[in-house]
Amino acid sequence: MKPYLKVNEWRIIEEGFDPALNEVSESVFSIGNGYMGQRANFEEQYSGKSLQGSYMAGVYYPDKTRVGWWKNGYPEYFAKVLNSVNWIGIDVEVDGETLDLSQCQVLDFVRTLDMREGTLSRSLTAVLPSGRKVRIESLRFVSVPFKEIGAIRYSVTPLDEAVQLKLTPYLDADVVNKDSNYEEKFWDALSQHAAVDYASVEVRTKKLDFHVTSHMVYDLAAAGDEDQEFYVEAETHSREKFAGVTLSLRAEAGQSITLYKYVANVTSRDHLPETLADMAQQLAEQARDQGFDALLDAQREAWAEKWRDGDIVIEGDEKAQQAIRFNIFQLHQTYTGEDDRLNIGPKGFTGEKYGGSTYWDTEAYCLPFYLSTADSHVARNLLIYRYKHLEKAKENAAKLGFSKGALYPMVTMNGEECHNEWEITFEEIHRNGAIAYAIYNYVEYTGDTSYLGEYGFEVLAELSRFWEERVTYSERKGVYMILGVTGPNEYENNVNNNWYTNRMAAWTLEYTLEVANKLKAEEPSTYASVTERIGLTADETEKWADITARMYQPEDAELGVFLQQDGFLDKEILPVAQLDPSNLPLNQKWSWDRILRSCYIKQADVLQGLFFLGDRYDLETKRRNFDFYEPITVHESSLSPCVHAILAGELGYTDKAYEMYLRTSRLDLDNYNNDTEDGCHTTSMAGTWMSVVHGFGGLRVQDGRLILNPFAPESWKSLSFKVGFRGARLKVKVTGGRTTVENEGPAAASLTLYGREVDLPAGENVSGERNPQAGAPEGAEVS
Amino acid sequence: MKPYLKVNEWRIIEEGFDPALNEVSESVFSIGNGYMGQRANFEEQYSGKSLQGSYMAGVYYPDKTRVGWWKNGYPEYFAKVLNSVNWIGIDVEVDGETLDLSQCQVLDFVRTLDMREGTLSRSLTAVLPSGRKVRIESLRFVSVPFKEIGAIRYSVTPLDEAVQLKLTPYLDADVVNKDSNYEEKFWDALSQHAAVDYASVEVRTKKLDFHVTSHMVYDLAAAGDEDQEFYVEAETHSREKFAGVTLSLRAEAGQSITLYKYVANVTSRDHLPETLADMAQQLAEQARDQGFDALLDAQREAWAEKWRDGDIVIEGDEKAQQAIRFNIFQLHQTYTGEDDRLNIGPKGFTGEKYGGSTYWDTEAYCLPFYLSTADSHVARNLLIYRYKHLEKAKENAAKLGFSKGALYPMVTMNGEECHNEWEITFEEIHRNGAIAYAIYNYVEYTGDTSYLGEYGFEVLAELSRFWEERVTYSERKGVYMILGVTGPNEYENNVNNNWYTNRMAAWTLEYTLEVANKLKAEEPSTYASVTERIGLTADETEKWADITARMYQPEDAELGVFLQQDGFLDKEILPVAQLDPSNLPLNQKWSWDRILRSCYIKQADVLQGLFFLGDRYDLETKRRNFDFYEPITVHESSLSPCVHAILAGELGYTDKAYEMYLRTSRLDLDNYNNDTEDGCHTTSMAGTWMSVVHGFGGLRVQDGRLILNPFAPESWKSLSFKVGFRGARLKVKVTGGRTTVENEGPAAASLTLYGREVDLPAGENVSGERNPQAGAPEGAEVS
Repeated sequence: MKPYLKVNEWRIIEEGFDPALNEVSESVFSIGNGYMGQRANFEEQYSGKSLQGSYMAGVYYPDKTRVGWWKNGYPEYFAKVLNSVNWIGIDVEVDGETLDLSQCQVLDFVRTLDMREGTLSRSLTAVLPSGRKVRIESLRFVSVPFKEIGAIRYSVTPLDEAVQLKLTPYLDADVVNKDSNYEEKFWDALSQHAAVDYASVEVRTKKLDFHVTSHMVYDLAAAGDEDQEFYVEAETHSREKFAGVTLSLRAEAGQSITLYKYVANVTSRDHLPETLADMAQQLAEQARDQGFDALLDAQREAWAEKWRDGDIVIEGDEKAQQAIRFNIFQLHQTYTGEDDRLNIGPKGFTGEKYGGSTYWDTEAYCLPFYLSTADSHVARNLLIYRYKHLEKAKENAAKLGFSKGALYPMVTMNGEECHNEWEITFEEIHRNGAIAYAIYNYVEYTGDTSYLGEYGFEVLAELSRFWEERVTYSERKGVYMILGVTGPNEYENNVNNNWYTNRMAAWTLEYTLEVANKLKAEEPSTYASVTERIGLTADETEKWADITARMYQPEDAELGVFLQQDGFLDKEILPVAQLDPSNLPLNQKWSWDRILRSCYIKQADVLQGLFFLGDRYDLETKRRNFDFYEPITVHESSLSPCVHAILAGELGYTDKAYEMYLRTSRLDLDNYNNDTEDGCHTTSMAGTWMSVVHGFGGLRVQDGRLILNPFAPESWKSLSFKVGFRGARLKVKVTGGRTTVENEGPAAASLTLYGREVDLPAGENVSGERNPQAGAPEGAEVS
Repeated sequence: MKPYLKVNEWRIIEEGFDPALNEVSESVFSIGNGYMGQRANFEEQYSGKSLQGSYMAGVYYPDKTRVGWWKNGYPEYFAKVLNSVNWIGIDVEVDGETLDLSQCQVLDFVRTLDMREGTLSRSLTAVLPSGRKVRIESLRFVSVPFKEIGAIRYSVTPLDEAVQLKLTPYLDADVVNKDSNYEEKFWDALSQHAAVDYASVEVRTKKLDFHVTSHMVYDLAAAGDEDQEFYVEAETHSREKFAGVTLSLRAEAGQSITLYKYVANVTSRDHLPETLADMAQQLAEQARDQGFDALLDAQREAWAEKWRDGDIVIEGDEKAQQAIRFNIFQLHQTYTGEDDRLNIGPKGFTGEKYGGSTYWDTEAYCLPFYLSTADSHVARNLLIYRYKHLEKAKENAAKLGFSKGALYPMVTMNGEECHNEWEITFEEIHRNGAIAYAIYNYVEYTGDTSYLGEYGFEVLAELSRFWEERVTYSERKGVYMILGVTGPNEYENNVNNNWYTNRMAAWTLEYTLEVANKLKAEEPSTYASVTERIGLTADETEKWADITARMYQPEDAELGVFLQQDGFLDKEILPVAQLDPSNLPLNQKWSWDRILRSCYIKQADVLQGLFFLGDRYDLETKRRNFDFYEPITVHESSLSPCVHAILAGELGYTDKAYEMYLRTSRLDLDNYNNDTEDGCHTTSMAGTWMSVVHGFGGLRVQDGRLILNPFAPESWKSLSFKVGFRGARLKVKVTGGRTTVENEGPAAASLTLYGREVDLPAGENVSGERNPQAGAPEGAEVS
């Protein structure tokens, strides 16, 4: 598919209507506010291809598991983000003819996602089958300051002649999930009301008893009649799970009729079910009382705030500029960190795929974005989310036969495992490593050590208990092994001694002991109370120390590389570049067994570990491993290139870093993988952000210092980004190999720029130059 | 569940009716004739738990695959043996009350499977809810000489008072498969007719267009009225897929009313669809003309014939006697070798599980039974079945990305793969080894070398081509490897260098070259024409020789054992005996990952190879491997104990051999695995036969000689069996360690009894004694 979106710094623009692209655009032009999300479906009826999607964060359904052959330990259900009340619907009838773009000639179609202000707009001229011509203009948003509110301004203008117009704003909960396993519907009706001036529906999920209530009010304006009454007939409709009002009126040629639709969507996640109806009504009426323009102003204000600290500016490459903003925009639309029961689904609110559930993507890829660009409570809430699931993770381990410890689920909504492929569900236990690493990362980045005593240590201890029981001691070799796992590279299953898994397990044990010792010394009463509560014994911590010391970490001395797993070198090692391109992508062209026995790597695995534990390995070790693994990595996970980009940046492979960045940055805008119609790759967008800030920016944190080794790709005039770090906000501007860091305050910042340590007071700045040989520091001077 | 069946040499007997056991009995008491099979469902209505099952061999349905996560290469469908026309049905009404045993008090219930004559009978007294009491006697069979015919004699006798009786014999094709993936029905109606004296239904499968037509006629007799007319009213019924006749009559107290129901079931597998109706009518009428008693006599005759050559007699252990006959009986019921399009499903015709499809069970376990007990064309047809699927096997290999060669499917009905677990479907490629071995085994056993030129070599060459491409050459180690497989032990998945797989692959290449050389020398024109047809080149055969020579076969020098796979010794090796029994069976108690990383073996793997290639390994090698692997084998496949029994016998571990035999012989009669309600373990019954004849009998074939090293378990007075071998029929009688072999002719036999070579003319016999140290021969003398 050829890229079709216009390049613009702040907007995503589609010009001309192509029904074949509609589902892709529905994903790309999605809007959300962390509380709810909405695909870019049309307000009016549309009989062409479309994936209807209105999602309420945290409202999910435990859809009965579908499996070919049941294996012990599989979960009973796969939690799915629910397609919820369609609140955007406005049917349009022109002289008795329904407006349906798939039946019309569509002229001057423009769809615009304005990322600066968080709105979706559309304008077009439709020639109906009868020949009647109308102009449609719409603008909508889900409000950031008033999270329950969705607002739409929808105008119809008959162009050539006066027409009888019917507009039917409605609410419809008679919706389905396309990915339902057994074609079930997930909602039961509770009530629906339609009156002359409002409509409401109350529904409840068939399982888990989530209640959602939507209440709609509206205003109608006719151009030229602003201060006058105009004659409108209203007819109400309701049926199970549906309520709407049809407004009939006469519109003169050229006269714009504008409907303002205000909807409040509230759920039993936040309020008692019996209060939802009143709540929704109040909120919707307040929104109408404020008026559309005031709501829109507030929306602009809220987004300006987000951009103030989170923007990345690229001069000299408008495509790259648009792409990085799109990624940042989607992340902010998906998660705001206000609700510690929520997390970040791989598709955000842009589609059903992956069920809107939580994956290790959050800890491995998303956390750094929120650490740098948002207040620390946002990242903290991502950690608290897992803390709250600790009991479920212990149950999960018990279910798989462990006598103690916690195994977090691979995919989850409420802490319970949802996924059902044994090689992933039961074997991708490396996720436990990422969850431990997230604690380390958070504390390192924020300096918030209080988190450890309060929550972190308990989680770390339970993770360590899991590893303690999960390892196998080889008497013959005198080492601990981890058998039967799938590493981050899912193109290998059930391997022994995946280096990444073993390494992160050993690191987890080591870090847990480090935290234990620190707490024992600094917060002895906290330490005592946690160890007592969880019954931690000295035998256990001794065992952890032994495992840490004797964990087997496969490597090949001759090549000087870590081995992805036992036996990896028995494979035929052939660079991807030498493979006939007709074989790619492997996951579409090869059968599973062929993929498994090949050397090809789906996503960073050993390299992921070298990124996480980067301070433990020297540049030459990283280089040997990168040189060995990068050529055989096919990056068929959208989460892969960012890690390669970051390491490439560190190794001074600037072209490679830029190439990797390009693979992720416009993934959805240019629909590279031909699957954007399912939704955007939201969590991988955080990876794109990482390839800029950690890759080009070279950002790391070590011993309480922020490390920067920035460079800008050659084709860029400059790159600027801001990162927050321990109370300071740093504005980094890179031009080629020269960088200026300005501390916007309020705190001073300890940083290392190009290898030179600087303590930068608020309000001051520092500049430095990159040594063309990466890693080797050049001077940096405070000014 | 406690064993509930009576022990009897020739019969399986259930006394007393327990509805909770009904589905188990329905499996155990199944009848079949290789052409069709029928579970022991009741003729009259039954509202209790029951799995209705009437199966026509080779009539299957491609049920849409169900899978959780689709992987490239999965088949579109899973072929299922179809539950076909219910032809046994006879509804019974007594004074307006329906006879339904689940609503009655049931007295004097006896269900009997007579294995000597191949009939199922039932007698009981039912007290209906109204208090009316009737006696029911039924006997039925599916005819061996007239394969399309099922015949039922069904008598009702009112006991205390005269009653108005209604008997409704019917045909019903409105049936379902319990294992349908999406609850679809698989049959479409074509026609149904009911008349006063017959009923018929014609149906067609919704896919593949199999037609089945059933035609039913009947006779009715009233005791005391044999030569007189008695008054019967007949009412016909037909609806879609159903036709029947209700016969109303008065029965005096104590007067038996007997219905003889004759049904012909014919299919489009054998005849043109348009001829089926006439064909079925003719066959049914001929059956009725012969009469029930004549049909029954013919049935007894046919079964007597089967037993003449195939019986095993055990003196001194009636339970063992019953068990071995039950196993032999089920095998003969399932497959007769008359139709080379048919094969042996794991459950025969006793249930739906495993879809009635063909597995490697056929080659590995069933073939030896038919080689020894039936004319050689029966075994030959099992080979021809695979020959006919060669093109499909080549397509299968191509589908998985191979440029040449054949990969036979793991599960199949028509040569196409049906199974959809990647670790089995794509990785259990060892099946190719068993298919090669079957050719070797057949030729060795029968001496029919003509098979090689005609069919065998072509199959072997395509199998070798597959292996040639499937191996990976390790430059570093200078050996060929086979990566990413599942061996016979399915409790390991995706391992590298499974010894059995590597060994059988190397052996296949070697044997293919041996056959090639033999053909080249002995049948040069055949050789030339085959090689030309398949385009075989010298490069290929050279490569095969190289792989044969340099195939990696993992072993541990210290332990002196072959390694099931790379890294096997990294596992914790703990004998099953030391495992808390609450862990067993693992497949019910442990999650899949735990099973995979444990050392426990589901079924013989290395030992399977040592059995197949037994002449290549000395006794000490076998002993070391047996001693290592047997203690960690859990035998959770019904196909496992027989191989261990055979090797134990060879090693002189007679108690272990007997223990292993006991695990298989009464598997279904005593419902050991608590799953007999799904059907009997038919293919494993061939394994039981092997544990007697190859295990206790020590039967092997080597260089054209039949080798026997028999012993009888201590608790048995004697063991006798017959085996056919290259035109001779040998009757072997073992008493303790002494054996007499009588050659019943017609050909002479070359045999080795207890290590002594004997050429035994027809009509003569030879005796010998076993050296208590197994393997060491003692004297044997011809008399």
